[in-house]
Amino acid sequence: MTENKRPHIIVLGAGFGGLEFCKHFHNPDAQITLVDRTNHHLFQPLLYQVATAGLSAPEIAQPIRAILSGQPNLTVLLDIVTDFNLAEKKVMLADRTLHYDYLVLALGGCTSYYGHPEWEQFAPGLKSLSDALHIRSQILLAFERAETASTPEMRERLMTIVVVGGGPTGVELAGAFAELARHVLKTDFRHIDASETRVILLEGGPRVLGTFSPELSMSAQKQLEGLGVQVHTATKVKSISEGRVDLENGETISAANIIWAAGVAATPLTKKLGVPLDRANRIKVNPDLSLPGHPDVFAVGDMALVLEPDGSPVPGVSPAAMQMAKHVALLVENDIAFEGAVARPAFKYWDKGTMATIGRSAAVAKVGKFEFSGLMAWLAWLLIHLIFLVGFRNKVAVLFQWFYSYVTYKRGARIITQMPGEASGSCSTARAVAATTVR
Amino acid sequence: MTENKRPHIIVLGAGFGGLEFCKHFHNPDAQITLVDRTNHHLFQPLLYQVATAGLSAPEIAQPIRAILSGQPNLTVLLDIVTDFNLAEKKVMLADRTLHYDYLVLALGGCTSYYGHPEWEQFAPGLKSLSDALHIRSQILLAFERAETASTPEMRERLMTIVVVGGGPTGVELAGAFAELARHVLKTDFRHIDASETRVILLEGGPRVLGTFSPELSMSAQKQLEGLGVQVHTATKVKSISEGRVDLENGETISAANIIWAAGVAATPLTKKLGVPLDRANRIKVNPDLSLPGHPDVFAVGDMALVLEPDGSPVPGVSPAAMQMAKHVALLVENDIAFEGAVARPAFKYWDKGTMATIGRSAAVAKVGKFEFSGLMAWLAWLLIHLIFLVGFRNKVAVLFQWFYSYVTYKRGARIITQMPGEASGSCSTARAVAATTVR
Repeated sequence: MTENKRPHIIVLGAGFGGLEFCKHFHNPDAQITLVDRTNHHLFQPLLYQVATAGLSAPEIAQPIRAILSGQPNLTVLLDIVTDFNLAEKKVMLADRTLHYDYLVLALGGCTSYYGHPEWEQFAPGLKSLSDALHIRSQILLAFERAETASTPEMRERLMTIVVVGGGPTGVELAGAFAELARHVLKTDFRHIDASETRVILLEGGPRVLGTFSPELSMSAQKQLEGLGVQVHTATKVKSISEGRVDLENGETISAANIIWAAGVAATPLTKKLGVPLDRANRIKVNPDLSLPGHPDVFAVGDMALVLEPDGSPVPGVSPAAMQMAKHVALLVENDIAFEGAVARPAFKYWDKGTMATIGRSAAVAKVGKFEFSGLMAWLAWLLIHLIFLVGFRNKVAVLFQWFYSYVTYKRGARIITQMPGEASGSCSTARAVAATTVR
Repeated sequence: MTENKRPHIIVLGAGFGGLEFCKHFHNPDAQITLVDRTNHHLFQPLLYQVATAGLSAPEIAQPIRAILSGQPNLTVLLDIVTDFNLAEKKVMLADRTLHYDYLVLALGGCTSYYGHPEWEQFAPGLKSLSDALHIRSQILLAFERAETASTPEMRERLMTIVVVGGGPTGVELAGAFAELARHVLKTDFRHIDASETRVILLEGGPRVLGTFSPELSMSAQKQLEGLGVQVHTATKVKSISEGRVDLENGETISAANIIWAAGVAATPLTKKLGVPLDRANRIKVNPDLSLPGHPDVFAVGDMALVLEPDGSPVPGVSPAAMQMAKHVALLVENDIAFEGAVARPAFKYWDKGTMATIGRSAAVAKVGKFEFSGLMAWLAWLLIHLIFLVGFRNKVAVLFQWFYSYVTYKRGARIITQMPGEASGSCSTARAVAATTVR
């Protein structure tokens, strides 16, 4: 795959970091190989909309090849990274081994259960498209079962949604679930009142959105409660089992739907690099984002632990990943141009502002010294996400979707796609399906 | 679930037949229970568009509850039919047993392999949403593998798509695959030329679209060949195995992608009714569409074998199913109003015309005595499908999709959603995934 002479750059991961590197690396003599385990770039910030039936999967995903088809010196590979050999400048993939001159690690993060992997089966996380489709199917299925539940206890259990973790994802999910139940599903059922759904948000820390100011945290909690979400701060989870959350304060919540939004870590593949990591498996990179002892290997985004001058880590948000990728693209360009004989500036994160959405015209935003919430913050969130959403088609489709659900309070993607009952339309399996039914 | 006094009508299946009955049955005193094994109504005529990455799943599916939320005397049940007891007027579902006064069978059809169920694993059919998503993922994955194939033979195998069956579905699929390869994927790859993809359509009969006139069949074949499809008529399949089709003429085709569009039968559940069936498991209903010996049970759509005055069967198309359902709705209304003391007219099928689409501005259509093909037929097809497409939102979204792909030759839904590599975003499984990789 690699040609001699021409420097070969391997980029692992087609998330915000990986794509941004490819877009800002302008040396046509170099050859780039971009590796991802899926065929699409995922617009992570809107993943919660797929999980809550607001958007369909293709609306927040774009084929990687389509995005980069204009770059002749770039090859896209659908493959899975299994191991590294930094000494020999090799990356081992499931189907082949590649040699690199420069390596850019942009594999992103994954859902971490803090040493409790056994909780995953009872409380799915939200990191991939299949995660989102799984959660969507599970929640919609729970309402279907509640409609025919034989006892009030069973009904209440099925109509309780617990979101663990009061960060941006947890807040977004809780708000969206509350709206789904109170407005979208309200008229759908005959035997249950979907608006009686309990949405409970559990946060271990003293307040939700801990990275925001206390004022915005308070505003976010008020807006959540306005949507009917029960917010419990300073509430730690002791254990999670089938349809049951046990809290450290001794209480127990019985809920058919438990979503885990409490932990993100770097992909465990970082452990195979043999470089210092933090507790979340993030690589303690040099100020120029290269790996200690490996000036030809860089890490960007959720894989990299970068410290601000004040010692706080750069947040794991897409703008940070994109800024890091752009920085690395420039470094590598210079490195190749001047054969390494050039000083490498340190990466500086420019915080353009952060925001979290809560629901229909409900959000909080912080831009520099300015903080605002409510409708104005929500409009800002809408605008910024539309601008950054990859691909013209998705922008229009998503805008249309949002406008439609804003006006009608309906959601178009209320489709259960992962049902045993719908496994296949074949006659031979139709029987088998009838036998092994949805319980 | 059923109340005394009020007549209870059970409708099985929320396809075109089931929905049409519910919409045209106007007796508010009667109670209707609609049972379906999925939570959505599927717009079957556009299923091939999901399989060929033209549309996303929610764009051709609508939540059943949302469609019928305006009918207070109607209950929707998500459940699976397992058996019948017509003598005791009972329907057994996976989770419960229901008693009916009137029963409407509208469970539709399924993919039949004519006594060769073992072919299914090598040649999936196209009847359900998961069928479509499965085919889409399989084809897109094949191109990804072709891009990195080590031998020309392997590459050719991966870039060969065989569609078995030259009926409307087979013709639509073959045309859409040819366009996908020649136009959409053309610029996506570096090592393969997607436009070299071989799309082969196999038809056992003397011509494609056998239910149309010889002229239209010839026109359809010409239009297919214009798109680059290799059409083989009078070519019967002897056997299908992994990546291989053996023909009765002794030839063998090596293809990684084999789609079965050759057979449709009624759901095998009809065998449990104890009434006369034809070879495709269709119920030989009375002229009024009731079951022989069961005046309170009706079958509509693909489950029913209805003969035209000339002895030919009414085709298994959605307009026929909808006309049957409307007929039955009226019968049952009268039956209840006059306590059965009223004559039942026989069902008459009104053929409004039939059409099949082949590709971008390519189609054939027959309306009464008028036959036309090409752009005009395609525009008619577009218009009619938009008009009948259930749900405002889908109409606009789909129209936008079509306009977009027509102008740009792009397809928005080129997303592989069913990949081992994308199974879950959890850290613990991320490893497992890396271990059990895509091969």
